[in-house]
Amino acid sequence: MKLGRLNHIGIATPSIADSIAHYRDTMGATQITEPFDLPEQGVKVCFVDTPTDSGMNGTQLELIEPFDESSPINGFLAKNPAGGQHHVCFEVPDIDEARAEFEGQGKRILGPTRIGAHGTPIFFLHPKDMQGILTEIMETPKEGAHWSN
Amino acid sequence: MKLGRLNHIGIATPSIADSIAHYRDTMGATQITEPFDLPEQGVKVCFVDTPTDSGMNGTQLELIEPFDESSPINGFLAKNPAGGQHHVCFEVPDIDEARAEFEGQGKRILGPTRIGAHGTPIFFLHPKDMQGILTEIMETPKEGAHWSN
Repeated sequence: MKLGRLNHIGIATPSIADSIAHYRDTMGATQITEPFDLPEQGVKVCFVDTPTDSGMNGTQLELIEPFDESSPINGFLAKNPAGGQHHVCFEVPDIDEARAEFEGQGKRILGPTRIGAHGTPIFFLHPKDMQGILTEIMETPKEGAHWSN
Repeated sequence: MKLGRLNHIGIATPSIADSIAHYRDTMGATQITEPFDLPEQGVKVCFVDTPTDSGMNGTQLELIEPFDESSPINGFLAKNPAGGQHHVCFEVPDIDEARAEFEGQGKRILGPTRIGAHGTPIFFLHPKDMQGILTEIMETPKEGAHWSN
């Protein structure tokens, strides 16, 4: 496997509304998507775009708020009530190949491959096998649209 | 202030050597700098470059290992023995202006502005004022060299 683009970093928050205000007013973000529900992942999501030299196509900040009481991020927020860095997500060209490679290395994969917030297949790797970091692997969007807008 | 480039994410590790092996062998990183000591910050550091559509100029992974027993990241590693996501770093065009803006908003800044791992001025903001995230602000390198190599 070859290291892919750092698509986004996932940031858990008790309030997406408060986090949007923080990134807009304190950090000066100019492109923030509307929040949307992702009930199958148990989260409400929105993306903050970051700039590169060539446009607003940098690594995104993915803000995630629990969707309900069974959300998988409730445990994280119980330990980190103000929110915090939850996961990192790298792109791969082929999700099935990547899954087979990680499995071949004995890395624990958390659940089935499924459709993530960007509409492409994703899976998560156990942080204990990934240097303490919950790692998401995401298939690069086919149309080359790595970012919102 | 306008949101700047996400320069790097800081990843604490008990062993830079093990982390380099992980990013090289498991994640497929192709550009990893030699580790170097930053005793005034209390860390040993190296950078893993990530790709964008135009080259290896994506947001870097900054691997940090404690330099000695007084390292400021020892507390983090005591809580997260396997390592984990430690901070995020955004670029600004002018470090003094950025500092004044954050101070004007009542954000707590941790210590003086100093020279960071990229050789440009940096400061850190208190995670309690930044949605639970230890946030580094870094002046964009003047020569436009955002990455190693």
